Order: sequence, then C-alpha cells, then structure tokens
Amino acid sequence: MSKTSPTILLSDLDSTPDKVRVMPLGGLGEIGMNCMLFECGGDLVMLDCGQMMPDEEMLGVDYVIPDISCLKGQEDRLKAIILTHAHEDHVGALPYVLPHFPNVPVYASEMTVALLREKLKEHGVKPKFTVLNAREKVRLAEHFEVEPLTVTHSMIDCFGFALRTPAGVIIHSGDFKIDPNPPDGVAFDHYAFAKYAEETEDGVLLLLSDSTNVDRRGSCPSEMEVVPGLEEIIRSAEQGIVVCTFASSLHRIQNVLNLAAQYGREVVSMGLNMERNIRIASEIDAIDIPGTYHDESRMARRIPRERRLILCTGSQGEAMSSLSRMAMGTHRDGVVEPGDLVVLSARRIPGNESTIYRLINHLSRRGARVIHEGMALIHVSGHAYRDDMKHLINLTNPRFFVPVHGEFRHLNAHCALAREQGMRDEEAFLLENGDCLELTRNSARVLGQIPHGRVLVDGKGIGDVDEIVLRDRRYLAEDGMVVIILGVDHESGEILSGPEIVARGFVLGEEGDAAFDSLKAIVLQAYEDLPIETRTEHTEVQAAMKRAVRRYIKKTNQRFPVIMPVVMEL
Amino acid sequence: MSKTSPTILLSDLDSTPDKVRVMPLGGLGEIGMNCMLFECGGDLVMLDCGQMMPDEEMLGVDYVIPDISCLKGQEDRLKAIILTHAHEDHVGALPYVLPHFPNVPVYASEMTVALLREKLKEHGVKPKFTVLNAREKVRLAEHFEVEPLTVTHSMIDCFGFALRTPAGVIIHSGDFKIDPNPPDGVAFDHYAFAKYAEETEDGVLLLLSDSTNVDRRGSCPSEMEVVPGLEEIIRSAEQGIVVCTFASSLHRIQNVLNLAAQYGREVVSMGLNMERNIRIASEIDAIDIPGTYHDESRMARRIPRERRLILCTGSQGEAMSSLSRMAMGTHRDGVVEPGDLVVLSARRIPGNESTIYRLINHLSRRGARVIHEGMALIHVSGHAYRDDMKHLINLTNPRFFVPVHGEFRHLNAHCALAREQGMRDEEAFLLENGDCLELTRNSARVLGQIPHGRVLVDGKGIGDVDEIVLRDRRYLAEDGMVVIILGVDHESGEILSGPEIVARGFVLGEEGDAAFDSLKAIVLQAYEDLPIETRTEHTEVQAAMKRAVRRYIKKTNQRFPVIMPVVMEL
Repeated sequence: MSKTSPTILLSDLDSTPDKVRVMPLGGLGEIGMNCMLFECGGDLVMLDCGQMMPDEEMLGVDYVIPDISCLKGQEDRLKAIILTHAHEDHVGALPYVLPHFPNVPVYASEMTVALLREKLKEHGVKPKFTVLNAREKVRLAEHFEVEPLTVTHSMIDCFGFALRTPAGVIIHSGDFKIDPNPPDGVAFDHYAFAKYAEETEDGVLLLLSDSTNVDRRGSCPSEMEVVPGLEEIIRSAEQGIVVCTFASSLHRIQNVLNLAAQYGREVVSMGLNMERNIRIASEIDAIDIPGTYHDESRMARRIPRERRLILCTGSQGEAMSSLSRMAMGTHRDGVVEPGDLVVLSARRIPGNESTIYRLINHLSRRGARVIHEGMALIHVSGHAYRDDMKHLINLTNPRFFVPVHGEFRHLNAHCALAREQGMRDEEAFLLENGDCLELTRNSARVLGQIPHGRVLVDGKGIGDVDEIVLRDRRYLAEDGMVVIILGVDHESGEILSGPEIVARGFVLGEEGDAAFDSLKAIVLQAYEDLPIETRTEHTEVQAAMKRAVRRYIKKTNQRFPVIMPVVMEL
Repeated sequence: MSKTSPTILLSDLDSTPDKVRVMPLGGLGEIGMNCMLFECGGDLVMLDCGQMMPDEEMLGVDYVIPDISCLKGQEDRLKAIILTHAHEDHVGALPYVLPHFPNVPVYASEMTVALLREKLKEHGVKPKFTVLNAREKVRLAEHFEVEPLTVTHSMIDCFGFALRTPAGVIIHSGDFKIDPNPPDGVAFDHYAFAKYAEETEDGVLLLLSDSTNVDRRGSCPSEMEVVPGLEEIIRSAEQGIVVCTFASSLHRIQNVLNLAAQYGREVVSMGLNMERNIRIASEIDAIDIPGTYHDESRMARRIPRERRLILCTGSQGEAMSSLSRMAMGTHRDGVVEPGDLVVLSARRIPGNESTIYRLINHLSRRGARVIHEGMALIHVSGHAYRDDMKHLINLTNPRFFVPVHGEFRHLNAHCALAREQGMRDEEAFLLENGDCLELTRNSARVLGQIPHGRVLVDGKGIGDVDEIVLRDRRYLAEDGMVVIILGVDHESGEILSGPEIVARGFVLGEEGDAAFDSLKAIVLQAYEDLPIETRTEHTEVQAAMKRAVRRYIKKTNQRFPVIMPVVMEL
C-alpha cells in the first residue's frame, strides 16, 4: 500500500461481527517474523509470532521481531495466539511478546507445544498451552472458531488453519508443501481444505497462502525423493559419515535415522537443538529411532569410523555450530578425518553462500569429501512450488486472496499467479505489513495502516537499538574511530592538557606515532585559529577540531573514521 | 602444502636453466588476485596481477592484492609481466604493483592493453606495453619465450600462454571456456594447444588450468546459447527494457547490441565502465555497433519507452551502480517505469544474493518485471566445465598438472579430475599460494614456500590495515563503543574532572541519561575502591575503569562494546 494510507488504531475499529479484519504485522515483505492479527466483533486472534535473522546492515543485532505496540491498551481483546508450526520464523518472537499477554491461551500442535514448552522455559515464560488436533474445531472467542488443517512441510506436525467468523471463513495455509508421502505418513489433508469450498452456503471468504517458492515451476518434490541420493551415499561410504541438516528438519532426520539403521551405522547427534528436537520428537512418537542412537557427542570417537554417522547442525557455516568446529578441528568430540564423507543436506540460505564455501574448503583440507546441494538430490524444499500454489487456490476456491510469507517480489508474483488462476485484480490483494484489510461476506478493501514495524533485539535490549545506532556501527565498521580530547580551563578556555588521541579500527598511514604527532599539531592549530572569544564555547571548539581532523585524514589517507572531539572542562 | 614447508627466498634459488620454478602468489586458494611467478635460469616472469574483493570479515577494506614482497631486492630479475585478459582479478593489482617495477615490460592482447592504458592513467601509471598477437611467439628473456594461445571467455581477446623454457614447455590456460561459436567469431584455438603435445621431442611439461567450474558436469554452453532467451524477451517487450550485465562481458554486450538493432531499440549505455568498455572495444573493432547507440545517459528519457533499451551495470545490487539508483529512483537519467522489463543477464556472485533480491524487490515495487538467472537462459558462464577441463588435459597431454584459479575445494576436485584422466598422484600437484614447484624435464617437486600473503588496500593505505585493525572494526561493528574520560591531578591522582562518557553505536538500555549517570557512579566507585597509591598509576586506573564498566554493561545489557578508558593528566 502506498505510504499515504490513513493510520488506523485498533481502538478505531467498530465491533460489528459481520466484518473481519486481517492485519499482517510481519512476514509480508520479508522472509521471517511471520505474525498476523485477525479482528472480528471486537475480538482479536494472533496467528504466529516469529522472529527474523538480521540482515547484514543490522550490525550486532541478534534478532528482529515484529512491533506489536498497536496492541498497547488493547491487551484484553487478544483472545488467542494460534501457531502453525515451531519454526523460529513463526514462534521466535514469543519470548518477547508473551510477557505482555500473560493470560492469553496459546494453541498449537502437540509437537509445537512440546518444543516451545522447553524453549520458553529458558526465558522464564510459561504460557497457557492448549494442544490442537487436526480436524478438531476449537472455539477461540465469541466470534472465532478454528479448525487445524494438516499440511506437510519440512517440520512435522504442521497446521494450516480455517478460521470461521460470522463474516465468513478464512483459510491460512501456514508453511506448506503438498507431500503425498512424507516419512511420518501424515499427508497433506486435501479434504479438510476442500470441504470449506464445498460448503454450499458461502465457501471460503479469503485464502492466505505461502509465497516462498513462487519462482519455482512445477510441484515441490516429496521428502522421500531424497532417500535414493542419501542411500547411495550412506551405502557406499567406506569411512565416517557426517550428515548436516537443520535441527528442525525432522522428516530429513527420520530418513537419515532409517538409512543409518539399514546400513549398520550408529548415529551420534551433535548440537543442542539437534539433540533436543530428536529427544522431544521421539518422546511424543513423532519420529522413530530404529537403530543405535547416541545423544552424547563424546560417543563419536568410540565408534569405529566405518560404523559412525554424525548427525549435526551447521549447514550454513555458522561459526559456533558443531560442523564448523569439526571443520576447524576445535570440536571436543566431533571429528572429520581424511576419507570421511560430509553431506550438507540443507538449502543454502541466500547471503550465506561464501560462509558455506569457506566451510567446504576447511572440510576439504581435512581430506573429507563434501557433497552439497546441486551435486546430488539430497535436499528438497519444504515450501509449495507454483503448481502446488495453484492447487491450493483450486481446492479452496476463495472469494478473495492474499499471498503471505514472502518478500515483495514473492507476494507480487503470487498475486500474478492468482490472476492466472482466474481471480480478478480486485480479488487478489498485495498486502504489506501493517495494512488493515476489511472483509465482509461480499466485499474487501484496505482501510489503511495500523502502527507496525521491526523491533531489533540486541543482547537484553528490545527495541533500544535504532537506525542512528546502526548507522554509527556501520561507520565504525568501515573505518574505525578517532577520539580527540582537549582539557581546557573552564573560564579562559585555555588548553591545560592534551590533545590526547585514541583510535580503534583506524590507522593513520604507515608512519605510526609520527602521524599522530602531526594530527595533534593539526588540532592545536585549529584551536589557535579560533577567535579568543569562541574558545570557551565547547561546541565551537569541538566542531573546529572535528573539521580539521577530518580534512587532514581525508587528505593523507582517503579514510573517513568516526571522529569524536571531546572538550573537558577543568 | 603443510605449514611446516621450508621457507624459500628467490635469492636462494640456483640459476640453472634446466630447472623451471612455478610460484603462485595468488589465486590458488581463492577466486581472485591471480598472480604467478615463473623462474628459469635466474630470470623471472609474472603472469597476471589481479585483485580480489574483500570478504565480509574485511570491514572497510577496498581491495585485496597479492603480497609481492618476495621480489624485494630482486626487482632486476623480473623480465616481463604477461597478462591473460583484462578482468580485475587478473590485472587489478597492477596500479599498486607496477610502481615497484617501472621498467618491466607488460605484454597483453590489444584489447587488454587498450583497456589498461586508460585505467592505469587514472592512477598515474604508464607501463611499457607490448601488444601480443595470437600464435606470434615473443622472447621475454634469455630463458623464456611466450606464445599467446587464443581462448574463449566472457571477455574478448583473451589468451592462454605457452611458455617455452630450456627445462620444457609450460601451458597456462588463463580463464577459458571452449566456445565453438563466440559472437566475435574468434574461437578457442585447439591447434595452438595441441601442437605442443604433438611436438615429438618433449611435449608439454606442465599444464596449469582454470578450476572455477569443476563442480559443473558436461560442457560450458556457448555464449550464443543466450541469444534465443534474450531475443524472446526483447522481441516481446512492450515498454522499456533494461539489460544489466558486467561491463566486461563484451560478448554479452555484442549480443544485446545485435538484438536491439534487430528489433528497433535504441541503446543507451549507463555506468562509467560500461560506456568506456564499449567505446574502447569499438575503437579497436573488437565489437560492432549495428544500430543506434548513445553513450550519454541523459538520452534515455528522450527515447520513447517502446524503443528504449538501457544497457547498464549493477547486476550484483551494488549500491552506487546505475541499476540500483534506477531501482531507488535516484538516478538522474535512468528510469524504470511500470511495465518495464529488467533483465539481469549475469550470474549471482556468491554472497551477493540478499543484496540482489533486495534490488529485485525495489524494481518490482516500481512495477517492473524482473527476469533473472534461473527464469530463462539469459546467462552462461565464461569458465570451462568438467568435460572442457578434461578436453584440455587430453589436448595438451601434460607430464605434470597444477590446477589454478580456485578455492581449495576447486583445486582439490580438479586434481581428482586429472587423476580420473589417468594422471598419477605424483603428477597432479595441489599447489597453494606461496608454494614453489621445481620442474626439470622429468621431475617435479615442491621445494617449500616463498613469502606470500594478502595485502589489504583501504583508501590510500596499502597494507597498513592488519588483522588487529580489522578485529577492532568487527568489535566496533558488533556493539559500538564507549569512551570514559577522567581528568586527574598529575601528582595526587585526585579526580579534577569527569568522568565524561561518550558512546557511539551503543545504547545503554532504554533509560537514557539516567543509565549514563549510573555508569558514571560505577566509574567513580571503581576509582574510590583503588588503593590511594595506585590512583596515580594510569594503567591501573584505566584497567579498573574498564573492568567495572564492562561488568556493569554486560549485566544490565548483555552487550560487549569496545570500552576505552582515558585518564588525562592535568
């Protein structure tokens, strides 16, 4: 929506139950921080509450989460948080958001609840969980009833949702692919989606659908398609095997566990999340461990190489991950020896390529053979391709359509795809974060924008790091900094001490101390050049010091450090 | 080679012409900064002298160039610099290296010389150029004769080299692909390579061959393979077209110029390098401009949209490039309007993906349709695939083999490929930068390592930015910095002024000034806690200030800024 849309506050919305409002707070304009509000008759429901990894401009930032300040003062209206699945981009903001809503119930699948319960405990957050079962409707609030719809994805126990309101039925796909044959046998539930379209009265008012892979033609391959590739690798390996994947890719992990058992390999998991996810999933029988499995990494060295399979995280080359430490030879237990085989069974997240290639170089230096995406079919996506997206539109036959889960280019292409499927321009909405879409049984329009944005989490700080701080960090990163301190008499402005010069991340050419002496002379000269009466004006003195130093450094070095002049009054 | 190889100095090498030494100074362990020394009978020849773009750890660095300090004191022995082609990773270090060798002649193709002459002038460097012609042998020094061998690549007028020495013939592939049908009609010269293998006496002693695409099966497609894809786009476009490619991809540029003429589009070039390369190439008849062409970007707005084709750089999303500025709407002349078509006819360099996707988002927001790699065959590589590499080994039938132009993983895989072609383990050498390989007519062994490394160019500084400076920049980038200044009496150590606290890129929680007051109190307390006698010891006082501040900030914020305590004596 254009930047001139009117600003809407939640308190402005009238509470007639014949209207339902859809308000994305995150995920529509980026891959990550998925979060959406629904409003009907005054009640609010939040769907997902995810985080995003900071981009390379957000120096030092740990996570990015959606700004939920629009809910301030409206806390009582939030009746439920419903979660599609346990990936961080759908649940990772909960530790920061839930404390504002201590009494709001959280609804999710058994697996999602089991994983979150343990993770949130670390943050001292104990929400009121209710486990949802597929096809079992639950009333969330006077005007909201939800039915979980089984979808397939790279994670297990994932849901889309049908939200029934007096204004009509809204279907949210969650993150989905259409896998007819997933390792856990729980296939995409076509009927559950289709039955809403077939309901004679109204059908589906709105479909919200995953846009991630809108650039990919055809249909997303089944998770089982990776089995032949992985089997060939595991079957033919003569020495140790390391399989690296995301800790949340539980289907992949199941496939690896099966193949390891089949070929007599003992599996050792490495990495906190890998161990935890396997433990929790197996406790609730979501995965099955058919062979020998060790959750203590120190077992790795006790297993003969030809019977060892290490299952670990670190496919993106993350510096502290198990695989990176094995590659650098700094892992206490994990080991990569000449002749070992390392399989990177995960996608390369855009932006991580050079880090991943560096990892592969280190592993190659240790004599390992590294098999990665592109060399064999050892990874498939967890997200629908174009034909799957079309299939979901056909299946649900919605009155209106909003693509979710994507950058602008994805949402734009997904709207175009919906038009290819026969939707009219005014039926497919390219919403962005903050847009408030109001739907009735037979109309839809964007009212304006609710307050929204990105909150940066940095250490214990939530939202205190802003664009100015980031800009300073970028400048500091580029050329470092120089502090110049002058001690002056508080009455006469006369120099009593200094200039002292301290620098970090900056070098003043190759002359070293001599160059700093020149710089000191430059500062003194700048001071001398000031009229006597302005020497007591600190801001004037500082500005003059800064100007002189900047000019000198630019001329001698063509560098632009952050310059901080300090005048101390004595 | 292992790190324990003996260190060799060029002055250590005996000068018998029956031995030839090969010493890579760059490019064997990275993609970039290609540079190699050859020594025979005391004479030295340098092949290529390239730069590399800094990786994301090298904050603020402009370029990386090979360390050539091994030549210090040996300048007179360097008889020639020969250049394979004009890409920056092969010639970009010349402005920094040539001033050390003002009298050494530089040999290269007509196109390479034409481009370099203009570029080097900007740096005030005027080397002694000699233009090489394919198949024309030139004596470089008593023990070196060179024959330029025509290879095909994304650039035009590119050479491999046959270096004849008393110890035998060395062939260097340069950057090559085997294109039977390049747009300029100058095909890969099979005969020129093969004839050395067929020479009855000795054949080829050593082949050095491009490893870039060793992961890709089959044969690299001809440049002409992009024509149908580009033609379909240009033919069917109804509004403006923007084609973005590298300014050095002159074959691609030729194809675009041809198609534009064919479909009645006027071409406007944008970007300094794009304009310059087209001008220089057309001056020496290396490319042909068949239709209407404007080298002034301000012409863009004067051409009706349906007849306009803008040819520009910026395919990697570089912030200051023409395309990025058009995408942001800040280009004075360039324009992207709704309905326009933008073609990114270039590869995505690993690490640039997220920047490129951001560019695509901006272009999509302006209503442009963006066609990029993967959506249509609009780009082919300039480097040989596996079958081409095998072909070159067959063609030259070398006694020994060294892969060049690649990271460790590429060189490693290329050695394995050579073994697949029947070379024995001791015939295929995985050399890295600095290794000194000595060859005679029937032997080859690594003697040790010559001094080598990477030199960082930052502004006017060449090599003064080191690992410590970079580490400081990384810390500054992560959490910013805090300067704490205390003015003390130079005799008693008593505090006369301060503490003053200045911070950049750092925030101390949300309390603002109050938090800084607490921090000042912490510093004063740390000072008070010191025994009277150590209060005059500045290093002790500074250490105590630093400790106290670090502990406090960690506890309250979980942040780790660079802390700089300054004690000023008054």
